[in-house]
Amino acid sequence: MAPDPSRQDPAIESSIPRHFTVKRTRPKRAGAGYAPPYPSYSVRFAEGVSNLVCAFLGVQSRAPLSHEAKVASAGMWELCANEDGPMSREHAVHTDEQGFDNQVIIAYWDDVDAYGRWFKKHRDALIGAGLEPSDYGRWIEAVTPEARGFETLYSSNTFPEGAARMATGGFTGEIQEHGYWGSMRDRLPIAQTDALEPVGDPVVPRNPGIVRVEPHDNLAVIRSGQDWSLCDDAERASYFSHVEPQLKAGMDFLTTEGASIGCYANRYMTSSDGNGNVLEQSFGLSFWHSLEDMERWAESHPTHVAIFRSAMTFLQANAGARLRLSHEVAVVSRDQQYYEYNNCHAGTGMLGARRPLGTATPGTRI
Amino acid sequence: MAPDPSRQDPAIESSIPRHFTVKRTRPKRAGAGYAPPYPSYSVRFAEGVSNLVCAFLGVQSRAPLSHEAKVASAGMWELCANEDGPMSREHAVHTDEQGFDNQVIIAYWDDVDAYGRWFKKHRDALIGAGLEPSDYGRWIEAVTPEARGFETLYSSNTFPEGAARMATGGFTGEIQEHGYWGSMRDRLPIAQTDALEPVGDPVVPRNPGIVRVEPHDNLAVIRSGQDWSLCDDAERASYFSHVEPQLKAGMDFLTTEGASIGCYANRYMTSSDGNGNVLEQSFGLSFWHSLEDMERWAESHPTHVAIFRSAMTFLQANAGARLRLSHEVAVVSRDQQYYEYNNCHAGTGMLGARRPLGTATPGTRI
Repeated sequence: MAPDPSRQDPAIESSIPRHFTVKRTRPKRAGAGYAPPYPSYSVRFAEGVSNLVCAFLGVQSRAPLSHEAKVASAGMWELCANEDGPMSREHAVHTDEQGFDNQVIIAYWDDVDAYGRWFKKHRDALIGAGLEPSDYGRWIEAVTPEARGFETLYSSNTFPEGAARMATGGFTGEIQEHGYWGSMRDRLPIAQTDALEPVGDPVVPRNPGIVRVEPHDNLAVIRSGQDWSLCDDAERASYFSHVEPQLKAGMDFLTTEGASIGCYANRYMTSSDGNGNVLEQSFGLSFWHSLEDMERWAESHPTHVAIFRSAMTFLQANAGARLRLSHEVAVVSRDQQYYEYNNCHAGTGMLGARRPLGTATPGTRI
Repeated sequence: MAPDPSRQDPAIESSIPRHFTVKRTRPKRAGAGYAPPYPSYSVRFAEGVSNLVCAFLGVQSRAPLSHEAKVASAGMWELCANEDGPMSREHAVHTDEQGFDNQVIIAYWDDVDAYGRWFKKHRDALIGAGLEPSDYGRWIEAVTPEARGFETLYSSNTFPEGAARMATGGFTGEIQEHGYWGSMRDRLPIAQTDALEPVGDPVVPRNPGIVRVEPHDNLAVIRSGQDWSLCDDAERASYFSHVEPQLKAGMDFLTTEGASIGCYANRYMTSSDGNGNVLEQSFGLSFWHSLEDMERWAESHPTHVAIFRSAMTFLQANAGARLRLSHEVAVVSRDQQYYEYNNCHAGTGMLGARRPLGTATPGTRI
């Protein structure tokens, strides 16, 4: 994009906070003269924060979610209120491709030591260790990325969502690094000097009982959300007619065929209250072999090109649309990941991780 | 894209020839493990070649092309047969947005010194210096990029087109650097160490008579073609129903509104024989403020996203389609460009160059 003089705002800033800025050995994709064509924002965590924590605490049963599973989820929610518990917690639900209902608590900490103490104390209760066999499953998927290995992007700077709720430094001003493919990597502080290439394969043990999946270095995780609660009726109708069907198709592809392009697991979830009532907010949560595989899908795969095109058309047709978009991405080392499953079906999250199988999507990219 | 074991061909090679390979200060966008999802090829020029030459020699008049203009074009064609003339020459035609017909000779040299001698001797005759005022215009647009500042990409390795006709080293084997956005830059030898940022603005003098446009450093030029001569009837029908209309719309956008995104000039041309009869081959020829602006349009602009999506859909629906795609890109310094116009309308090629005006195309890119 060429510089637009009207948008050469002196207040534009880097998504990378000053205290993580180093001499790049890997240049940014955007040139120095690049000015983004519309505003977007990141958030700032406290300067002393070394790592962030995002834990997904799930229960599942054949749909509809069983009473026992709901009780288990409520118990997890209560544990979050204990000492060293998360700064922020929220609910989401989804019915997975095997017809199981999942209810999930998403919990965030900006203090990895507090999380460590909390988790050590409550792991057995969370995963259900020592409980009698039951009709429902429990699962934990938690990542503890370095703050340098975490980045965020928001279309609005007024409603903190997800990881933004632990950002004590609030929203940034308008950032430079967005509006082009490759901007995700340009926003990641660690990518100033690190190619973030994946190392190794996930190992999924086949033991009975509680199963812990062994991941690998530089796995990438994205939570990417949309909130239509502020849309007017016309915007909402347009979103559900034109954008959401493409988004759903892309999410279904990642869930069922993602292994072919490096996506280990994907859930297309809807935010909910503690009683399972859905809110006007959804998100995709996916786990990837590498940041590069995630980039490739977003920029090149027919299913995401369709999403991207429908979103652009929507945003152009609905000037000033109040659809709010949010995005948070972590690249994590092997020891910054924890995946554990008890009595879950074999396709649950990282339990279903398979190595890339290859695919072919012709179409010239320059 | 994740490595596909079935495509880990040991014969895969870099688009960058060995003698131009240097230690990168600017890493490739593709990781070392990247294997492209389908085959594509570049071409090899002779090792001793320092620069390549691509000259567009045009005539124009209000449509239909006047007899005098046709005679002038035939004269240019004859000059090409003289000593030090081009290795390859071909014809193309297009009716521009002002309703003028243009007939163009596209001439290639792999010897910039021979071109220099030839051009010095014939410049006056080519541009019509000293001729009486006439009802038609003449124009010259020529670039002489370093071989290091030139890259090619072809979907097929059997039919040399355009710049491939001066590639005495023939086609490469399957190359690695394609199938992802940013691959163009990864194929350019000079981009191993150079960000190729644009410097300066074009200057379009308003003097009467012959006008020479002053360009700037790191301007980028692309010729991007499609050939449907080998398609069967169903493929051809699908191409013209689904792909070509999107291509046409994108070309029209670049021609009429390209200035907003850094495109100085664009022509959507059809190859032809010397009598103006069209062949089953077309191409876009465009001049850009920077390689980055060209990249941005291709990956992000609604008009090109539409082209890309329609092409992907076509290629998926027509497995083994015999549509042949070709692409050649040059990034040139100020003194590697020559733009001259005699009696042409003000929107002709670089005569109509305007500086970027800025635009806004929302839609989240990661």
